[in-house]
Amino acid sequence: MSDKAISMAVVRRLPKYHRYLYDMMKAGEKRTSSRELSEIIGFSASQIRQDLNNFGEFGQQGYGYNVEDLYNEISKIIGLDKKYNMVIVGAGNLGQAIIKFGFDKIGFEIKGALDNDEKKIGKKFGGVEVIDVDILETYLSKNKIDIAALCVPHDVAQNLADRLFISGVRSIWNFTPIDLVVPDDLVVENVHLVDSLMTIAYLLNG
Amino acid sequence: MSDKAISMAVVRRLPKYHRYLYDMMKAGEKRTSSRELSEIIGFSASQIRQDLNNFGEFGQQGYGYNVEDLYNEISKIIGLDKKYNMVIVGAGNLGQAIIKFGFDKIGFEIKGALDNDEKKIGKKFGGVEVIDVDILETYLSKNKIDIAALCVPHDVAQNLADRLFISGVRSIWNFTPIDLVVPDDLVVENVHLVDSLMTIAYLLNG
Repeated sequence: MSDKAISMAVVRRLPKYHRYLYDMMKAGEKRTSSRELSEIIGFSASQIRQDLNNFGEFGQQGYGYNVEDLYNEISKIIGLDKKYNMVIVGAGNLGQAIIKFGFDKIGFEIKGALDNDEKKIGKKFGGVEVIDVDILETYLSKNKIDIAALCVPHDVAQNLADRLFISGVRSIWNFTPIDLVVPDDLVVENVHLVDSLMTIAYLLNG
Repeated sequence: MSDKAISMAVVRRLPKYHRYLYDMMKAGEKRTSSRELSEIIGFSASQIRQDLNNFGEFGQQGYGYNVEDLYNEISKIIGLDKKYNMVIVGAGNLGQAIIKFGFDKIGFEIKGALDNDEKKIGKKFGGVEVIDVDILETYLSKNKIDIAALCVPHDVAQNLADRLFISGVRSIWNFTPIDLVVPDDLVVENVHLVDSLMTIAYLLNG
């Protein structure tokens, strides 16, 4: 990490800053302040100053922040000045929806999809070809993949995660309801949809 | 809330307990301890005891926890002893994937999908009919809906959230990249996919 002291809480706020600054930029706003950002984003002004101070000196006393500069800086901090190659593992309904989501527009290009369904192999979804998951290792040795989106049934999730790691994939976007057991240097980002829905159920009964 | 003192951090751990206890139950395990749960789930044993103490007296000194009882209790705490009716707002790729995910198996039944695309209206996806979003208010007055999964483009998200709230929907499962502005008594659970992907990008550059 660029600075090990940056907490995950700060990291998870970065996309939100990015999102709001993009909207402000599109609305033609040139200049902002931690107070204005606070009103829009909902974090306290001091929280915002603290967050941004983690990454260097952005604001100017008496001026505040230049919207476009701050947007560009945060893009760079997140790593959006680079491109990322993704593979979809499991070309079912969810995998197909991810293919068609449009993540390429923000620099995440889906290079292929892996599946074991003979009816799908060789077909294309949203321009992305489905490849036999049996040749995952060969595919990954020939294609530099940064992120694997794991959209498979839960009983094969761990095994596929192991194979992805061994084949050099550095991060897994995990849509399965499993907490994957992986080495520390493999990034796992979970999207646990069932957990999310259960949280709603709990809150509805409040 | 059944107890206002329960923090969201605890609430978000409940589905995880539920998940692991289900697996243990299926594996035929009858009895467990906070120490064993700790090894499996990865929270500390004292964290687990603390979490469960929030909801009453579950364990027995010297015995630990009965797996099935604890599973059933946590199901009830989450609210999984009840059924929930869902509507999908936006029957695009993601909306269709949610329809076909199988959430009905855990008690969340998708009763309909709303969309403005004339080619989709009247069609069925995974057995769920697409209804004209223009008649959202009429639809919701005739159908008791607990949860609306919002899977629409970002520029119409807030307006639809307003209409859903006015029509009596009590919770929104928000898949749009917007932070919805809603009254306090409307539950909003965000699944911000772009934010999630950006977090991966940041961690990959660590």
